[in-house]
Amino acid sequence: MPSYSSKELYDGLVESGLIIPVGVQGIFGRNAVFEDVLARFDQYVSRVAANDGADKMLFPPTLDRKVFEKSEFLDSFPHLAGAVFSFFGDDKKHAELRNRLHDGKPWGDLEGITDVVLTPAACYPVYPSFTGTIPEAGRLVDMQNWVFRHEPSPEPTRMQAFRVREFVRVGTPDVVVAWRDMWLQRGLDIMKSLGLPARSEVASDPFFGRGGKMLAVSQKEQQLKFEVTIPVISEEKPTAVCSFNWHQEHFGKIFEIKTKDGAVANTACLGFGMERVCMALFKHHGFDPKAWPASVREKLWP
Amino acid sequence: MPSYSSKELYDGLVESGLIIPVGVQGIFGRNAVFEDVLARFDQYVSRVAANDGADKMLFPPTLDRKVFEKSEFLDSFPHLAGAVFSFFGDDKKHAELRNRLHDGKPWGDLEGITDVVLTPAACYPVYPSFTGTIPEAGRLVDMQNWVFRHEPSPEPTRMQAFRVREFVRVGTPDVVVAWRDMWLQRGLDIMKSLGLPARSEVASDPFFGRGGKMLAVSQKEQQLKFEVTIPVISEEKPTAVCSFNWHQEHFGKIFEIKTKDGAVANTACLGFGMERVCMALFKHHGFDPKAWPASVREKLWP
Repeated sequence: MPSYSSKELYDGLVESGLIIPVGVQGIFGRNAVFEDVLARFDQYVSRVAANDGADKMLFPPTLDRKVFEKSEFLDSFPHLAGAVFSFFGDDKKHAELRNRLHDGKPWGDLEGITDVVLTPAACYPVYPSFTGTIPEAGRLVDMQNWVFRHEPSPEPTRMQAFRVREFVRVGTPDVVVAWRDMWLQRGLDIMKSLGLPARSEVASDPFFGRGGKMLAVSQKEQQLKFEVTIPVISEEKPTAVCSFNWHQEHFGKIFEIKTKDGAVANTACLGFGMERVCMALFKHHGFDPKAWPASVREKLWP
Repeated sequence: MPSYSSKELYDGLVESGLIIPVGVQGIFGRNAVFEDVLARFDQYVSRVAANDGADKMLFPPTLDRKVFEKSEFLDSFPHLAGAVFSFFGDDKKHAELRNRLHDGKPWGDLEGITDVVLTPAACYPVYPSFTGTIPEAGRLVDMQNWVFRHEPSPEPTRMQAFRVREFVRVGTPDVVVAWRDMWLQRGLDIMKSLGLPARSEVASDPFFGRGGKMLAVSQKEQQLKFEVTIPVISEEKPTAVCSFNWHQEHFGKIFEIKTKDGAVANTACLGFGMERVCMALFKHHGFDPKAWPASVREKLWP
């Protein structure tokens, strides 16, 4: 039985050079070994999904602010969101900005909001492109996007910036739910095949404030969110490495997505937290991938 | 002789599905074909650099604000920078935020500055890790990072978010300059081998404000910046696809980087604008890579 410690894992990742601290929690560099593991896991997922016929896309780490505002993310998670501000002033204002900086004084009030925000969830950028009537069989998109969450933490698994391999399904409720269920099993199978003690559970999102508690209870009761979890920094609170969300008509209504029969389309998504999967592998098999069990290496370096 | 038009290139990229508009200028999705070309070019650069012994790293799209403040980027390019703001309020403030959003009113003043900014140049995240005395032979790092520039534009080559394959060299001035010169030739050779009409030129950065013009003149006089350019949207104003910067002691002083003999280390960097290279290829060889000249395909799909 391994023992779990957030600090030991963080220190081990740093000492082995796998991550490179940059001075702020939840932001760090990754070295070539870390990136190779991440790329190999990505390719493994691609092999599992090879015959699904998904449209592959990639979106930048920044998102149209109008899309973000429509998405209602700020209703539920204002504390996790990141908006991009920049400088719109003239030479005089710039002199003030420089003076403030050189005196070590706050300068945020000299900045104004731009038209972009940081991508708050990997699936958000794609919904506007679904607007209209989707084909009979629905839509399936496969992405790998950087996600931002404003939650600085010393826990290595809780990052402010991370990559998510994300699949999004659009269609009728039965199609979308059956697809989610298929991937829940696939997610478990993938993790178990990598020698990781994974299990699935009903989950809820970290909704903001007093009202948020009720939203989380309702989300659980409706079984709208599942997670595949693995103990990485704690036995009692295993880490979600894959997250499955059924949005019902939420995005269909907001972005006016319809099925052939004119009904509001359902959507669901699932995302692998790529860095978390790597960390689960490093925790359970050690910091040197060359020394991992042959059965694990076969899956990642076939 | 091809004719050049920013709008025609943008429309062609959209119509062929290579890029996916998201509603704001300079931010768009990339499809599987675009990403394949980008990955293949990345691998080509890796082959050219294979024996250089670089340390490979990857950093997230967000950077420690303290590092950013020290870097003096805001002195020169405040208008291009992006700072990340988030919500630090309570339930009451959140109610106000929600009301503003639902009424379509501005809400930026309810946000506060966080400890992170968007990475303003691909090399910035790595300098703090050089602090101290570098080895006799200096340091060489190889990265691929997302960069943010607040400059919305209808030109497809002028993006708010893009990837840069970046190499950073740290050492004595002679080592750093010789390395920069070697890569300037390599950059030209790579582009020409891909059938692209590349040339190199002395360049300057888009410094802010009245004083900025003088800084740009001085930068050119000192030959601190070179670019490899290719006509992509204009014959007269070719697009920089690779940029070479000699920072002299700038970062060495700021991040206290010393050579063996105790002198302040010099740094230089070069970066390939990955999306711009792809667009140059699409412009000169067409939107379907399968129909590209055999000599180009051999380099990318060897």
